[in-house]
Amino acid sequence: MIILGIDPGSRITGYGLIQAQHNKPVYVASGCIRVQGDTLAARLQCVFRSVAQVIQMYQPETAAIEKVFMAKNADSALKLGQARGAAILAMAEAGLEVGEYSATKVKQAMTGTGAATKAQMQHMVQAVLRLDATPQADAADALSIAICHLHTTHSLSVLRASSERVSSFGRGRLR
Amino acid sequence: MIILGIDPGSRITGYGLIQAQHNKPVYVASGCIRVQGDTLAARLQCVFRSVAQVIQMYQPETAAIEKVFMAKNADSALKLGQARGAAILAMAEAGLEVGEYSATKVKQAMTGTGAATKAQMQHMVQAVLRLDATPQADAADALSIAICHLHTTHSLSVLRASSERVSSFGRGRLR
Repeated sequence: MIILGIDPGSRITGYGLIQAQHNKPVYVASGCIRVQGDTLAARLQCVFRSVAQVIQMYQPETAAIEKVFMAKNADSALKLGQARGAAILAMAEAGLEVGEYSATKVKQAMTGTGAATKAQMQHMVQAVLRLDATPQADAADALSIAICHLHTTHSLSVLRASSERVSSFGRGRLR
Repeated sequence: MIILGIDPGSRITGYGLIQAQHNKPVYVASGCIRVQGDTLAARLQCVFRSVAQVIQMYQPETAAIEKVFMAKNADSALKLGQARGAAILAMAEAGLEVGEYSATKVKQAMTGTGAATKAQMQHMVQAVLRLDATPQADAADALSIAICHLHTTHSLSVLRASSERVSSFGRGRLR
């Protein structure tokens, strides 16, 4: 199963792809979309089409994006929202379900604490995926979102499997 | 020439279409997209696909949207940005150029003053387009954006035509 993580931004949108092997994350690819265009419409098309191209190329089965709780200010929130909307649309139009995780949740999944610095996160991504070099910051964020999604869906499926065992045991006793 | 105006919102997105007849706006259609869906991705797809459907149905040749200068707060700016991004993408992907006008510019185009109330704007839209009833607020906003776009592109084309006359006169004198 290939998982796509997206770290959207109005100037740079990071993407990261990992593969789940025995529920351990293995690096597939990552990079940055440098958003270009003379008009807002052209820049949103750049995000939308670039994310669609990444999906086309690596055929992920599921995707995740960072949940935004508090933006710095209203102006940057509007710009971020527009880019985020374009990225989510590209994933949804490709038929992918899009998980959303708060920055705290992503940090916890990577370092065990919700208060990790950007440098610590980059270091952990490099260590977990056994990369030769530290990935660029936006690509590292996207990879950590994908890893968080893997951990969460794995925990959920374990939980679901164990609750199914419980309920089938329950049904057995009722017969 | 049919002009599409869009007033984007995360819960309701208004649309309005007018036709330019001798540079006077004539009403074509208007309405509200009530944004539905259980997930953010589904809601953005609702905006994107509904705007695409309106374009498909009325085949406008140009489009316009309100420029946002100051949002109320960062949280609502993010939500508005996402919906706005989806609407702009639908127009851009249909090959339309998207004009952007500030609320002040739209109000000036409609009432001659940048400080008109919402009720005054609705009243002016009804009067200018000779409608039997006051359109719903978001649809009225979308119609007024389309009317502002018509006025602006008309003024620009008049300006361009007169500057072409001046420059061809200039070239004539240089020969």
